[in-house]
Amino acid sequence: MSRFASFSAGGETFYGAIIEGGAVALSPEFPQWPTLKDVIAADGLHTLAMAARNSEVTHSSFTYEIPIPAPEKIICVGVNFPDRNAEYKDGQEAPANMSLFVRFPRSFTGHGRALIRPKASDQLDYEGEIAVVIGKGGRHIPETEALSHVAALTLCNEGTLRDWVRHAKFNVTQGKNFDASGAMGPWLVPFTHPAQIEDVRLTTRVNGELRQDDRTGRMIFPVARQIAYISTFTTLVPGDIIVTGTPTGAGARLDPPQFLRPGDVVEVEAEGIGILRNTVEDEA
Amino acid sequence: MSRFASFSAGGETFYGAIIEGGAVALSPEFPQWPTLKDVIAADGLHTLAMAARNSEVTHSSFTYEIPIPAPEKIICVGVNFPDRNAEYKDGQEAPANMSLFVRFPRSFTGHGRALIRPKASDQLDYEGEIAVVIGKGGRHIPETEALSHVAALTLCNEGTLRDWVRHAKFNVTQGKNFDASGAMGPWLVPFTHPAQIEDVRLTTRVNGELRQDDRTGRMIFPVARQIAYISTFTTLVPGDIIVTGTPTGAGARLDPPQFLRPGDVVEVEAEGIGILRNTVEDEA
Repeated sequence: MSRFASFSAGGETFYGAIIEGGAVALSPEFPQWPTLKDVIAADGLHTLAMAARNSEVTHSSFTYEIPIPAPEKIICVGVNFPDRNAEYKDGQEAPANMSLFVRFPRSFTGHGRALIRPKASDQLDYEGEIAVVIGKGGRHIPETEALSHVAALTLCNEGTLRDWVRHAKFNVTQGKNFDASGAMGPWLVPFTHPAQIEDVRLTTRVNGELRQDDRTGRMIFPVARQIAYISTFTTLVPGDIIVTGTPTGAGARLDPPQFLRPGDVVEVEAEGIGILRNTVEDEA
Repeated sequence: MSRFASFSAGGETFYGAIIEGGAVALSPEFPQWPTLKDVIAADGLHTLAMAARNSEVTHSSFTYEIPIPAPEKIICVGVNFPDRNAEYKDGQEAPANMSLFVRFPRSFTGHGRALIRPKASDQLDYEGEIAVVIGKGGRHIPETEALSHVAALTLCNEGTLRDWVRHAKFNVTQGKNFDASGAMGPWLVPFTHPAQIEDVRLTTRVNGELRQDDRTGRMIFPVARQIAYISTFTTLVPGDIIVTGTPTGAGARLDPPQFLRPGDVVEVEAEGIGILRNTVEDEA
């Protein structure tokens, strides 16, 4: 399985392949593609995989960055697993349409780094999710063709400040966009078959304890439908990211609620993608 | 008053100054600054003004683009005038915190161009607003210093699909992000004094009929407070845009509601900034 990451080392930023023992920097070989977004726009993941095939580790020590540093859009799907709709306890049936919100890239940090619990709130919570990266762009994409527009998969800890998502009358924007409150990565896995997303197990652990455990087959709005619906209003472009929804079991819903604290270790895992692991630190 | 715009002509994109008779392309003189975002990041608007001073029109015919083509963030403030809160008729007092949502750049078109009424909805509505462009970035910006972080002002028609903002349980994302459903421009006006924003008249006309008419001095959350609040959770960077809220009088609140139709002309005007004028067309 090819795995492509963005990473930094010695003050420089690279993208490349992750192999046994470390990273193979490939960006120096492809100056025409400055970032993985450009690779994806050129349908170049296969070319990268070829280039990585006989390469050796160039960096055994490096820092993971989020895979796509500056996507045009990161759109997140809210309340997308049946029990999570029930968690809201507002007596409403599953909604007819999906709830969508936006996160900025700087609300995420890379794999292996610390989620930041901000000064403004002690209610930092995890949400383990799978994120899909758009390859071929488009508008009004039919649901039947939607998965052919996905170039890659990655993992997301869609970290949330629970009090700040309820700050205002509408919208969760602020509670979803604290700097480095979430994480994305570790890497992109090329998407080549619908089975990679249609019914895979997705789990989240905190300090080794299983907190979320469900399968993507139980999504209220499957990924193909997400792409079709979102492209009704906006043109999707290569590198756009859709964060596809989290299972039940966030810390806010435990009794009593258990929010993340400095020193905690959060792991989001999905079959066929890997494990996204982050610690927690207080804002400096 | 200096006015700086992004525009296209002959298949090329430029930025420059708008003067009597047309545009002065300045971007060819400043290759170190590819877009107005880069100019602002370098605190270069004054340098542009100097360069424009003795220049002649280079383009008498051109197409306006949105002033900052790819800001890192466009954050919009909802329900920010007293009567608009009352318009929601939900019996709630003015909220303690502002409602925030996000728009993608492609949801806006430039001055003089057509807003697009999409196939998916006939409820396209206007919202006239003033947008501030961040110059000096920062996090945890005190309200007392906030206006010193504003580099420029522009106008926004924060066009909205009224049925699609209520599509889901939470969030207005989809109804605020139809491609080219809103507009931004025509130009940036450098921000040099608080009086440019603190209490200026803001109006919207449809086919010459006054529909919105209020003053920024009546905002529930003034611009300085917006910057302070937003920078509590996210680091503002040069070129970020805050769309500061619309007065009462959107078409959805008229009795009966009056949505925009092909051929309509919408004008958003603010003292000291100018007029943002757009027509309306159906999606092709």
